[in-house]
Amino acid sequence: MQQQIAVITLGSADLARSQKFFAEGFGWQPVFQNEHILFYQMNGFVLGIFQREAMAEDMGQTPQAGPAAMALAHNVATEAEVAPLMERLVRAGGRVLRPADAPPHGGFRGYVADPDGHAWEIAWNPAWQIDAEGHVTFGL
Amino acid sequence: MQQQIAVITLGSADLARSQKFFAEGFGWQPVFQNEHILFYQMNGFVLGIFQREAMAEDMGQTPQAGPAAMALAHNVATEAEVAPLMERLVRAGGRVLRPADAPPHGGFRGYVADPDGHAWEIAWNPAWQIDAEGHVTFGL
Repeated sequence: MQQQIAVITLGSADLARSQKFFAEGFGWQPVFQNEHILFYQMNGFVLGIFQREAMAEDMGQTPQAGPAAMALAHNVATEAEVAPLMERLVRAGGRVLRPADAPPHGGFRGYVADPDGHAWEIAWNPAWQIDAEGHVTFGL
Repeated sequence: MQQQIAVITLGSADLARSQKFFAEGFGWQPVFQNEHILFYQMNGFVLGIFQREAMAEDMGQTPQAGPAAMALAHNVATEAEVAPLMERLVRAGGRVLRPADAPPHGGFRGYVADPDGHAWEIAWNPAWQIDAEGHVTFGL
């Protein structure tokens, strides 16, 4: 079986607020949108931002609000890009969870919560290769 | 800026239980593991299964237990593969959240929670292309 995840779907209480956050924070544009969902074409998969009540109906359970045991990482090419991107995400409606510093395993990283509380790690990790299409390969 | 997510990290209360679930359920093998984390090389990104307390320390916040407003989808090539994979995931320690059926937008899908409660959608979506490396492209 392919080691494949086709979609990461995040619940959103306000799709317009989410779209603004991703546009102004990351500069990302959706490939599709309607009143229930935004889809972003990512590096080998699709990111879905799903209106919370519609997502709960689709999943068959009502999710909790607030932070989950889950984080998404966006990796940048240099250590110097980490802090400015975190500042940009905060201006776009995010909230710092952990200021950037150097973790024991190397590199440099901090965490910002998006407007719905989902944790985004902004990281520089020189051991992991990222190609021109954004495809990421594990490395040590 | 690249529309890129380098890592999806999920918290785990028991790494051995998680490793067994992903091996017996999906047939997936980690590319790296230590006492705190499992890394799986995926389709253009890396899946991390992070021991919950270590993850909380890294994130700078203690996440909630239980279901979050988040789901990960694994897409299969035919409608007939959805139910057998869901059954296999349940035998590996998962729990059905929603039995498979046809959603209004087409295709066929159901949801299974992994042992830590993270929601996995098992889906057949004929409009979305998946190449030999598992890279997924949005389609209508």
